[in-house]
Amino acid sequence: MFSPHKILEEKLQRMLAEDLGQGDITTALIVPAESIAEAEVIAKESGVAAGIEEAKILLESLGLKVEALVADGEKMRMNQKLMKILGDARSILSVERTLLNILSRMSGIATTTKKLKEKLQKAGLKTKVACTRKTAPGLLYFDKKAVFVGGGDPHRLHLDDMILIKDNHIATVGSVKNAVRKVREKVSFSKKIEVEVARVDDVLVAAKAGVDIIMLDNFSPKQIEKAVKLLKKAGFFKKVLLEASGGITAENIIAFASTGVDIVSLGEITDSIKTLDISLEITKVEKK
Amino acid sequence: MFSPHKILEEKLQRMLAEDLGQGDITTALIVPAESIAEAEVIAKESGVAAGIEEAKILLESLGLKVEALVADGEKMRMNQKLMKILGDARSILSVERTLLNILSRMSGIATTTKKLKEKLQKAGLKTKVACTRKTAPGLLYFDKKAVFVGGGDPHRLHLDDMILIKDNHIATVGSVKNAVRKVREKVSFSKKIEVEVARVDDVLVAAKAGVDIIMLDNFSPKQIEKAVKLLKKAGFFKKVLLEASGGITAENIIAFASTGVDIVSLGEITDSIKTLDISLEITKVEKK
Amino acid sequence: MFSPHKILEEKLQRMLAEDLGQGDITTALIVPAESIAEAEVIAKESGVAAGIEEAKILLESLGLKVEALVADGEKMRMNQKLMKILGDARSILSVERTLLNILSRMSGIATTTKKLKEKLQKAGLKTKVACTRKTAPGLLYFDKKAVFVGGGDPHRLHLDDMILIKDNHIATVGSVKNAVRKVREKVSFSKKIEVEVARVDDVLVAAKAGVDIIMLDNFSPKQIEKAVKLLKKAGFFKKVLLEASGGITAENIIAFASTGVDIVSLGEITDSIKTLDISLEITKVEKK
Amino acid sequence: MFSPHKILEEKLQRMLAEDLGQGDITTALIVPAESIAEAEVIAKESGVAAGIEEAKILLESLGLKVEALVADGEKMRMNQKLMKILGDARSILSVERTLLNILSRMSGIATTTKKLKEKLQKAGLKTKVACTRKTAPGLLYFDKKAVFVGGGDPHRLHLDDMILIKDNHIATVGSVKNAVRKVREKVSFSKKIEVEVARVDDVLVAAKAGVDIIMLDNFSPKQIEKAVKLLKKAGFFKKVLLEASGGITAENIIAFASTGVDIVSLGEITDSIKTLDISLEITKVEKK
Amino acid sequence: MFSPHKILEEKLQRMLAEDLGQGDITTALIVPAESIAEAEVIAKESGVAAGIEEAKILLESLGLKVEALVADGEKMRMNQKLMKILGDARSILSVERTLLNILSRMSGIATTTKKLKEKLQKAGLKTKVACTRKTAPGLLYFDKKAVFVGGGDPHRLHLDDMILIKDNHIATVGSVKNAVRKVREKVSFSKKIEVEVARVDDVLVAAKAGVDIIMLDNFSPKQIEKAVKLLKKAGFFKKVLLEASGGITAENIIAFASTGVDIVSLGEITDSIKTLDISLEITKVEKK
Amino acid sequence: MFSPHKILEEKLQRMLAEDLGQGDITTALIVPAESIAEAEVIAKESGVAAGIEEAKILLESLGLKVEALVADGEKMRMNQKLMKILGDARSILSVERTLLNILSRMSGIATTTKKLKEKLQKAGLKTKVACTRKTAPGLLYFDKKAVFVGGGDPHRLHLDDMILIKDNHIATVGSVKNAVRKVREKVSFSKKIEVEVARVDDVLVAAKAGVDIIMLDNFSPKQIEKAVKLLKKAGFFKKVLLEASGGITAENIIAFASTGVDIVSLGEITDSIKTLDISLEITKVEKK
Repeated sequence: MFSPHKILEEKLQRMLAEDLGQGDITTALIVPAESIAEAEVIAKESGVAAGIEEAKILLESLGLKVEALVADGEKMRMNQKLMKILGDARSILSVERTLLNILSRMSGIATTTKKLKEKLQKAGLKTKVACTRKTAPGLLYFDKKAVFVGGGDPHRLHLDDMILIKDNHIATVGSVKNAVRKVREKVSFSKKIEVEVARVDDVLVAAKAGVDIIMLDNFSPKQIEKAVKLLKKAGFFKKVLLEASGGITAENIIAFASTGVDIVSLGEITDSIKTLDISLEITKVEKK
Repeated sequence: MFSPHKILEEKLQRMLAEDLGQGDITTALIVPAESIAEAEVIAKESGVAAGIEEAKILLESLGLKVEALVADGEKMRMNQKLMKILGDARSILSVERTLLNILSRMSGIATTTKKLKEKLQKAGLKTKVACTRKTAPGLLYFDKKAVFVGGGDPHRLHLDDMILIKDNHIATVGSVKNAVRKVREKVSFSKKIEVEVARVDDVLVAAKAGVDIIMLDNFSPKQIEKAVKLLKKAGFFKKVLLEASGGITAENIIAFASTGVDIVSLGEITDSIKTLDISLEITKVEKK
Repeated sequence: MFSPHKILEEKLQRMLAEDLGQGDITTALIVPAESIAEAEVIAKESGVAAGIEEAKILLESLGLKVEALVADGEKMRMNQKLMKILGDARSILSVERTLLNILSRMSGIATTTKKLKEKLQKAGLKTKVACTRKTAPGLLYFDKKAVFVGGGDPHRLHLDDMILIKDNHIATVGSVKNAVRKVREKVSFSKKIEVEVARVDDVLVAAKAGVDIIMLDNFSPKQIEKAVKLLKKAGFFKKVLLEASGGITAENIIAFASTGVDIVSLGEITDSIKTLDISLEITKVEKK
Repeated sequence: MFSPHKILEEKLQRMLAEDLGQGDITTALIVPAESIAEAEVIAKESGVAAGIEEAKILLESLGLKVEALVADGEKMRMNQKLMKILGDARSILSVERTLLNILSRMSGIATTTKKLKEKLQKAGLKTKVACTRKTAPGLLYFDKKAVFVGGGDPHRLHLDDMILIKDNHIATVGSVKNAVRKVREKVSFSKKIEVEVARVDDVLVAAKAGVDIIMLDNFSPKQIEKAVKLLKKAGFFKKVLLEASGGITAENIIAFASTGVDIVSLGEITDSIKTLDISLEITKVEKK
Repeated sequence: MFSPHKILEEKLQRMLAEDLGQGDITTALIVPAESIAEAEVIAKESGVAAGIEEAKILLESLGLKVEALVADGEKMRMNQKLMKILGDARSILSVERTLLNILSRMSGIATTTKKLKEKLQKAGLKTKVACTRKTAPGLLYFDKKAVFVGGGDPHRLHLDDMILIKDNHIATVGSVKNAVRKVREKVSFSKKIEVEVARVDDVLVAAKAGVDIIMLDNFSPKQIEKAVKLLKKAGFFKKVLLEASGGITAENIIAFASTGVDIVSLGEITDSIKTLDISLEITKVEKK
Repeated sequence: MFSPHKILEEKLQRMLAEDLGQGDITTALIVPAESIAEAEVIAKESGVAAGIEEAKILLESLGLKVEALVADGEKMRMNQKLMKILGDARSILSVERTLLNILSRMSGIATTTKKLKEKLQKAGLKTKVACTRKTAPGLLYFDKKAVFVGGGDPHRLHLDDMILIKDNHIATVGSVKNAVRKVREKVSFSKKIEVEVARVDDVLVAAKAGVDIIMLDNFSPKQIEKAVKLLKKAGFFKKVLLEASGGITAENIIAFASTGVDIVSLGEITDSIKTLDISLEITKVEKK
């Protein structure tokens, strides 16, 4: 998900601009225009760092010098210094909250993802942990990037990069079979096709229709095992990818992952998140 | 926080545009261009509705007809229908996820806010429940609107609408007293002045310096009571507003609120949120 | 590639805005503000219609009434009427050139694509005809949409929707094998992997490395046949897709397509284009 | 057509952003974040360089170092190096296609223009070669700049910089005479007035009405000569400029230009273009 | 200067958006969401109406119904009703100030222009009254449109629509003659050429160099008369246009205009303006 | 009102972009691309400098070097040099007019503000001089910043930073008392509440309702004195702030200010302005 810095800058500055309104009136009245400050960004709890690249782009776009002391994806412990910032004191104070909101959200998402991933690894499972498109509205890029940084699979990046036939699509054409057939008539060779199935019976239908991935929506581990058995018998197992989705949590993820599915996906990773506590401290201020 | 619909449209469509990329290829291949659909938005758990106004603006901007069956701020029970949508089937399917991301985030925030508010009301307390600027980056408007809808206080809307002197500001000028003095020299008569204090002693300093609001940052309920006592003695109680902030949760909110502060503020309301489960169902599709 | 109209409107209006500058001064001085006009859009040569959807969105966004007499993808003969437009005379005159530029470019691309497609069909070949990312800069959406309308395959929609390992990528890691291995370690399950190979030997390497598609770059039909033979022998034929690219023209397309490749791709479809001659005629003007 | 670089940057980055979508996933997975690369841009066929200024702006805006080895308007031979680029390897790979699309389109247009211009010069004719507003939609600036670089006349830059009364305008007021009169009543002294005429008789009408330029639309060389004779007789020749337009090609341009017109204009220069083959090669990659 | 409404909408809404910030909190707290209001826009002093078209576009874009009771360019007397507005009460209250700022600035400019124009007409002079590019920054379109509405000449609309060689240009190439020669080598046939001269002697130089318009910069009426005499003698008078600029005011405009110049231009019309007093009154409010 | 430079850049470049259109054609034809120039910005009349910060941001964003010889808020005398600029000659010439429009408008506003302020100071009055939201449309930030630089109070920055209940609000709910009550029910603790009153009697009503500020709209000095007397008697004087607004000019400002009000506000400061004459001179041009 690489974009040249200049391209990301615009999104980051729109965030900052909303927070500024007509300007940071508190800082303007207290801090002289010529002041130079040094600041540190510090993790107040342990986790996985994410948003470091985005934070650098934002800060550097304001003319600030940044030294990152941790890289995206690395673990950080409580009270660890993540970044040193040097430059115009007013700019540092004005960007503080936007900066921390980015870092703490992205690190929170990466940390959650990593925990799930490690849980599976400890159980000897190679199942992928994926997020969905249930992100904060407008934060698709940032939320999915954080999942990737945490070792998860970002799944579709938006609506144009994979075919994903969902319940409402199937409703409009009557059956899984019809939906897949319609897609295969005109779809670009460059796209994978995934279909969401709600009943065990439809799993074989989907596999036979020639999809690349089957999403088992709101299946219990039991039902998934039944579906796997059917696919094995029909020779489709490991030829079509299986994604379990719906009702999966940190508590039950092992039960789902050990059924033989290739991917478990959780809306909650990017949806009902817990941010990581990160703060910024001014360590020095002086006149230019 | 009223803006004419046209102004909010742009923000909402930027969210949709990111999700679309070059377009919804699944829908394009399955649903004919001339199809008309009816859909319902349904709450899958109980809570407080928020984002209804924003959802309507988004849907209507796409030429869809919308009937809202619940208003922002109203309670909704599980399986309650929130909206009926009628119009171009492709548009409904393409906007579904963005729409639900807005509704479920905003309703989640409003529900959490309302619960805190009701907890205080049951305890006979009139303390205000406020959020902070710890929002999802770029979602300041939506997150604060949701807090307001849930009965909370949105606090500063951004950096230009109140003076809020924080620890890092004080660090640059040496003392609470200096910081307040510098502000009062030039600040517009239209702004309130709030100052964050970290020690009980500074509470009196702040009050004497002539601020409108004192934020007691990371004070325990005990420390707050001590501060209140000092202010009462010096005749400042109820003349300056008191905001408790830091470490406040649903569990301990009564302890904080019953100290006599006017406002309790929680970063978590807009930060580490739990979205509300809301879904969209196509109920009918037909050719134009 | 479906997007709700509102989303496409912005792109279309940016085109119009550039052409307008500070306004259409000729029209302002000649045509009274209250005039209503009827106009017809007419094909001046035969071909395949494309851009009709986009044209409608643009015109309707200006408050004009539009009746499309032909649909995207349909054939049109010389002098056929494509659209009727009714509304503010000044708006029609001001949008005329932008409108025709869109229609004639998109129809030109669709017509070329269709001709290639039909050539293959007459020869009994099912090979897909694809375009590349060699579009007019900034017109990725419009050019690829036109290819799709003409019956071609739009290929990657941009840089995020498929892995396509090109010569310059391979140069940075030393070999096709290394490049594919690095990708497979972290790539999302939702993406297909294509690799560009420059030598016949690398075709088997790529297939064994587990890619979904192999692009045979600047291979002669002879070399392609050799590659196909190798793949058949190794059991990969029809399991991995083959795309021939480079040096393919309307003249030699049959020679390339009959080698057994699944896709032939041509930069020229969207790159060195021939627009279709389309014009707009005012048929009636009257005062409001 | 000079604009400070910052102003052009935005247009160029919008082009890049569309191509990137959520990011260059192939490059992200293969090329390490710390890599530095050297690259060369090479002409694969001979022609006239254009887009060099725009290419530099785009590359430099991404923090890349660029050395241009050829200037806009200079001839380049096959295999000539046009630019050296040094910097972040990921950025170079991600911008490659957008960069080449700009260079090859603009150089293609400049090359075509130059060839027409040289044809006239060899025939001893000073007639100007102009383009029209038939450009790729949204590429008015880039297409007209390329014509200018190739030695052509960019004609109107958009709808606000000259009065050009066309057939549809005349249709709304009944006659050439009425149209010109209405314009002259209110037009700014800063604008030239051109009128399009479709019949030889209207040429004199236009000249007498006081226009600066007459466009002879779809006149044959014979008809143009007749018009010139009339103008000479009435004393208007060389007092009013004459532009021949419609049906002019590389084959017949001499016949049109030798009639005595001041300008020949061709929609095809910017409309049905042939791009020039230009490529980018990574010559070195190393860790930062 | 006609642009379809949709194109102007964006500029107008950017103005409104700045004024709104995160929303009109006063209106939100006082006026219920369902209220419908009627309002009138009233001139509080006499003058010339301008901005009516723009005001309508802005109001209608918010879904409000508007009846304009006066047209751009018409005279209005004190207390005359200019518009009736009907619709969402909150929207009317929120847009009030932006609306009035547009109307009162544009009407102020049109009124001043008209007065100057009428002064000349009463003196039997046909000299054009032009503005310059000295507008409020970013309001080029609105300020020049207002001048046009008031009967003035908008002069150059921006930097691309006429050649205007100014003192700083001449300084870079040494002389008026050189500057004009350089321009004439490459300039498009579609542009007029104007040159600013600072000394009487340069007037003839400019005329001989073949310019269309000569700007007499900071010439006294006496100096202008001298220049006119020189031009008459050399046969250039009425063949080249003359523009007097600098130091012209409502008091001395007759002296300047009666020298024989074609245009008098005044920076002050759009620069040091007097807005017209216009107000909005809510006449009725009711529940939907 | 501090914003990091990057944020202001966008607004400034939008102003420049409008003025450029498709580019500065005069400069392009006269000044070679490689030229470096030195220029000076000079005050042609005395006043207070404003816009210096904004001018620097604009110039530096174009890659120009700037040395400011005067700071915002400082006095400047006629012919004083305000800035030295060094860099690309074409960029300097192209930005000249936009630059001067910003500087001369902002300095004009600051100068007017300062004069009013000094008048009060000489009379021994500490009354604040405030502007209103009657600015040039879209220039809210720049106009209010200039007032602040000139020593005035910027008042509300937009519609979200203070409650200001105006006549039209009161009209919708029937009375000052109702309006204030409705606001106080839900308003955030972070906002001040101001109410506009039109009659002396309402002053006490407003004070009793608990507002922070009372705007005496179109009161004569006599009426204001009467209101002050009432407030003193009721014990509200100096507890609620008083703002006089309407009909205040440089001539009568002492009469208003000496009544005891805390603030006098004048729409004219930002509305019917007199710009300061400032010019730019190229002092040197050479090849790179």
